[in-house]
Amino acid sequence: MISFRNDYNECCHPEIFERISKLYTEKNTGYGLDKHSKRAQDLIKDWLGEKDLDVHFIPGGTGTNLLAIKTVLKPFEGVIACDSGHISIHEVGAIEATGHKVIMTHHKEGKLTPEAIRACMVRQSHDFSITPAMIYISNTTELGTVYKKSELADLRKVCDEYGLKIFLDGARLSYALNSPENDLSAKELMKYVDILFIGGTKAGLMLGEALVFKSDIADKNFRKLLKQRGNMLAKGFLMGMQFERLFEDDLYMEIGKQTIDSALEFAKKLESKGIEFYAKPVSNQIFIILDDEKIEALEEKFEFEFEKKIDESSSAIRLVTSWATKSQEIDAFVDCL
Amino acid sequence: MISFRNDYNECCHPEIFERISKLYTEKNTGYGLDKHSKRAQDLIKDWLGEKDLDVHFIPGGTGTNLLAIKTVLKPFEGVIACDSGHISIHEVGAIEATGHKVIMTHHKEGKLTPEAIRACMVRQSHDFSITPAMIYISNTTELGTVYKKSELADLRKVCDEYGLKIFLDGARLSYALNSPENDLSAKELMKYVDILFIGGTKAGLMLGEALVFKSDIADKNFRKLLKQRGNMLAKGFLMGMQFERLFEDDLYMEIGKQTIDSALEFAKKLESKGIEFYAKPVSNQIFIILDDEKIEALEEKFEFEFEKKIDESSSAIRLVTSWATKSQEIDAFVDCL
Amino acid sequence: MISFRNDYNECCHPEIFERISKLYTEKNTGYGLDKHSKRAQDLIKDWLGEKDLDVHFIPGGTGTNLLAIKTVLKPFEGVIACDSGHISIHEVGAIEATGHKVIMTHHKEGKLTPEAIRACMVRQSHDFSITPAMIYISNTTELGTVYKKSELADLRKVCDEYGLKIFLDGARLSYALNSPENDLSAKELMKYVDILFIGGTKAGLMLGEALVFKSDIADKNFRKLLKQRGNMLAKGFLMGMQFERLFEDDLYMEIGKQTIDSALEFAKKLESKGIEFYAKPVSNQIFIILDDEKIEALEEKFEFEFEKKIDESSSAIRLVTSWATKSQEIDAFVDCL
Amino acid sequence: MISFRNDYNECCHPEIFERISKLYTEKNTGYGLDKHSKRAQDLIKDWLGEKDLDVHFIPGGTGTNLLAIKTVLKPFEGVIACDSGHISIHEVGAIEATGHKVIMTHHKEGKLTPEAIRACMVRQSHDFSITPAMIYISNTTELGTVYKKSELADLRKVCDEYGLKIFLDGARLSYALNSPENDLSAKELMKYVDILFIGGTKAGLMLGEALVFKSDIADKNFRKLLKQRGNMLAKGFLMGMQFERLFEDDLYMEIGKQTIDSALEFAKKLESKGIEFYAKPVSNQIFIILDDEKIEALEEKFEFEFEKKIDESSSAIRLVTSWATKSQEIDAFVDCL
Repeated sequence: MISFRNDYNECCHPEIFERISKLYTEKNTGYGLDKHSKRAQDLIKDWLGEKDLDVHFIPGGTGTNLLAIKTVLKPFEGVIACDSGHISIHEVGAIEATGHKVIMTHHKEGKLTPEAIRACMVRQSHDFSITPAMIYISNTTELGTVYKKSELADLRKVCDEYGLKIFLDGARLSYALNSPENDLSAKELMKYVDILFIGGTKAGLMLGEALVFKSDIADKNFRKLLKQRGNMLAKGFLMGMQFERLFEDDLYMEIGKQTIDSALEFAKKLESKGIEFYAKPVSNQIFIILDDEKIEALEEKFEFEFEKKIDESSSAIRLVTSWATKSQEIDAFVDCL
Repeated sequence: MISFRNDYNECCHPEIFERISKLYTEKNTGYGLDKHSKRAQDLIKDWLGEKDLDVHFIPGGTGTNLLAIKTVLKPFEGVIACDSGHISIHEVGAIEATGHKVIMTHHKEGKLTPEAIRACMVRQSHDFSITPAMIYISNTTELGTVYKKSELADLRKVCDEYGLKIFLDGARLSYALNSPENDLSAKELMKYVDILFIGGTKAGLMLGEALVFKSDIADKNFRKLLKQRGNMLAKGFLMGMQFERLFEDDLYMEIGKQTIDSALEFAKKLESKGIEFYAKPVSNQIFIILDDEKIEALEEKFEFEFEKKIDESSSAIRLVTSWATKSQEIDAFVDCL
Repeated sequence: MISFRNDYNECCHPEIFERISKLYTEKNTGYGLDKHSKRAQDLIKDWLGEKDLDVHFIPGGTGTNLLAIKTVLKPFEGVIACDSGHISIHEVGAIEATGHKVIMTHHKEGKLTPEAIRACMVRQSHDFSITPAMIYISNTTELGTVYKKSELADLRKVCDEYGLKIFLDGARLSYALNSPENDLSAKELMKYVDILFIGGTKAGLMLGEALVFKSDIADKNFRKLLKQRGNMLAKGFLMGMQFERLFEDDLYMEIGKQTIDSALEFAKKLESKGIEFYAKPVSNQIFIILDDEKIEALEEKFEFEFEKKIDESSSAIRLVTSWATKSQEIDAFVDCL
Repeated sequence: MISFRNDYNECCHPEIFERISKLYTEKNTGYGLDKHSKRAQDLIKDWLGEKDLDVHFIPGGTGTNLLAIKTVLKPFEGVIACDSGHISIHEVGAIEATGHKVIMTHHKEGKLTPEAIRACMVRQSHDFSITPAMIYISNTTELGTVYKKSELADLRKVCDEYGLKIFLDGARLSYALNSPENDLSAKELMKYVDILFIGGTKAGLMLGEALVFKSDIADKNFRKLLKQRGNMLAKGFLMGMQFERLFEDDLYMEIGKQTIDSALEFAKKLESKGIEFYAKPVSNQIFIILDDEKIEALEEKFEFEFEKKIDESSSAIRLVTSWATKSQEIDAFVDCL
């Protein structure tokens, strides 16, 4: 069985394992106050080119999203997100469970637009409406698309106008930054966003996401919130060691590049077979449309996710590459078409 | 200044005041355990024609909605509602503040449809989606429209199919039941709904809503929840006395009829002036479209609510009648057009 | 049946009823934005002798407590209170239901002491303890005792030292200020507290408590929170009208004085019968110790609350007077002893 | 620097690392639905000698505690715990943050007693008290003490009488079961408890706790709650692989035994030096009382935790052994005394 199901089906990237194998008997301070976490935080600040940042490591993506949002919003405030957004539909109402409304709006190829934000602000302008105070975007998006720098600048402009904070869910940020569509550098990121989630789990770590706040937004007691919500690891150094390695020698970008190269190779071969794409293939999530019969046949040899019914006899499926994807696996799939 | 702003701008209906004036020095047990509350609960059960009901009195509508929903849903469950629904947009995210998602969908003249429910069930069918467990509808709706019996039967059918409970927000139920559109009797209500909110505040009471659960759904400790959320009055008998009077001698329906008669008179006179309606005028909320200039002029003599911009130079406004509305007030308004 | 059960068993004081009877057909703006609420807020500010205050009217005490605390605390902060405090034991965990810990400590005659606060601060000083950020006190206390000015000054001092806000639950404030124990004037109150709850329900109103924040602490969007939690009345003017009357012509203090006079008369007569007091009788809650047999006999003619078992054959009961208590009722009780 | 700070300062036990090193490139299904998690669940059921159990793996202890409690309690219910309990003081109010009160009571050597439970039931018996519905105990306790079988039987009896569920926090269960004080076998555990937390983090795993529900108590949608609260790992198989190894060949008990052996050796050597114990040393947490000057001197060479001031010049400290503790480290410490 060859898997294109997702980019988190192996424990970790070999370089990450290598690092842990060297350090696993080293004694460290608990709860994320160890030297590896400290150095990893510094490496991330260097990578982003900013000093005034607060960086925290959190085991998973849903916890990262809910903590990022919970800590910034007041009780009567909400967050604007696309209806395709991860927090809107794929996290069992995790944001609402913290007491806050996700103000859902339509997307354009998985992206939030200034027009959609403006419409939300009008709709939510009554005395007894939830006050929007933040937008949530993801890059790459849930449809595998990538924000252009100009699109982020437009969002920044409308958000500044309304006093909205910008939170970027970068569970797959390494794939966004390595996409052929991308025109953004890591060092420009904090110009466009206020809170950033740098994904580790989907970029080769065993576990761990880095949550980055601009220091003037960050709550100085965020660690208390982290503990209270059950999202602080006793062995926080396990995440620190991994992020330390991930941001040494540009490994994070290297894993992204290798994965995107596989994806583009895959897309090219699919295209050469005349396969129809459900969304433009620019990152490591490739959505294609196939006959339901063909899909059924493929399921005997390959793992992938069903996305949605297109019409009576065809559907869109999702194929995901990772740093571990091999050309032979891609060829095996394409040959079956 | 003549007001068509709403149906809750006077303390109470004269008959309600009369009753309180007789009882206000009577000593009663606190926290809703008094004899008036008890009798009012019985009168409501009689009116609905069912015995196996739990009836509670709650000071206001938002509290009633959030308690009704909170007590029935499990932490990972949500409630389906129209995007025009009161809980969707006019209660500062009260439902989300209890931890539950309002699964918003489009409306058809303010009403929820079986098709919209089915679409929600498909959209929310992923492993990590909120599970819909209830629908929220209002009658009259926020657009002043009224559900037909057949529409409720259709909702009941689709809800039974999916195991969804039906919660009816009847803040203006007396106006729905007296609408010319209505073909439903009070005694049929509990066939179509599982939880019912009978509005008192908008039907002439000083304060108070009656929340009715089918007994097999009701939590036997609901009173604890009521207290915990700060929605139990020490002087609960004040609501008991009023509801007791409201459901004696059919006062509830009489207030509804008188109000609807005023509204229909108003609509007829508006129509005779060639005024365009934003929604069909069938209850005590009348939505009309006027030039913005005309609206500005009217605001000098009349109070009413702005509903929404229609185009560059015109808007919809809302006119509400109550049991206290006089023909002269209606005429004064119509004459100004 | 003569009732000494509580001070909220009649609808309202005759002067309050008189006022409502004059205004009940007057049309007013909803949601507490009416002229009566405005004037009542001003009268309260005058009474307290301060301008920079935010005053809100809320239907009941539990809602007032939870909103006062919720709006000031951050998610990882808690409130220190006596184990006898109303929020500790009599509100079904209303504070915890908003996500905040009540840090319970022992009381001294129903009062919180600087020593108890200091002990809490030590106990809660670990990295992963809830941070105390507020103290909750009640005056009169749940045991009917009254804070001396020097005691409040001592609390203020320790709270300033630790950066704790002071919240005073004055559900029975009018009785505290009229107690023979009291040496505090209304105009001094805001020197000692940051947030004040002035009780209306237990002082002759149909319903309503006034919540007063020092303006620099108040959330400018508190009304959104009030609505979200289901504690905003559509007919807020009903509370406004009553508080307006309560703070005209010193009615609030007059009701307090009349009630305390009854209580002192009651205490004196009980004392003359050689009855043992469970707590010093200085306000309108009188706690006495009686044989269980005697209590059983009294229950046939009188209503009162059981407080606690003292030993195998005797218990403490609570007797409460109000502005409506008559000398004959007191005599009838004392005669039965 | 030699560390006796805690039992979670190394990444993992060598046998656990060995297993991961074999499997880390294996592709697995996400979200805990993999074959390793499945087998680990079966091994745990075998170890406990029961089939009708639901087993879930959760990254850390606080998340495990809050999910276990949240999923079983209704909104107006609370959990009884010792004031020394982990949920009472060391988790930043995590339980209260889910809306539930921790009903704190005194402990006897870190243990909850039937008498303390009975006293809570009386105190919480008012109409408007939180209803106790569960007790929380830990074994070993936060003072390093261990429950006897008879003590658990007594708790079971009083809990059955009142309808209380029993939740055992076994973050250090392997050390309890290997204590010389212990007379309980793993196979007897589910007779005494309804919900069990088997600690992995403090028993040599990189991360992970096993939460075990009796099936008739378990919510069939618990996985939704796990995801919603941000406590479900995408790479759940990482925990599955580790627990699989931990419950093969009795490794869990072996790690426990080795650690306890070190602790007893440590205690014996301390005793021979005439050191005073703060609590009887029967598990891998040893509490001793030393002069503050001596403590200061030790801090230059050793890491340990401060427990509490005993008097003006002395304090209690905590020494913890793990499977990695060496005799030389113990000797080095004892020699310094």
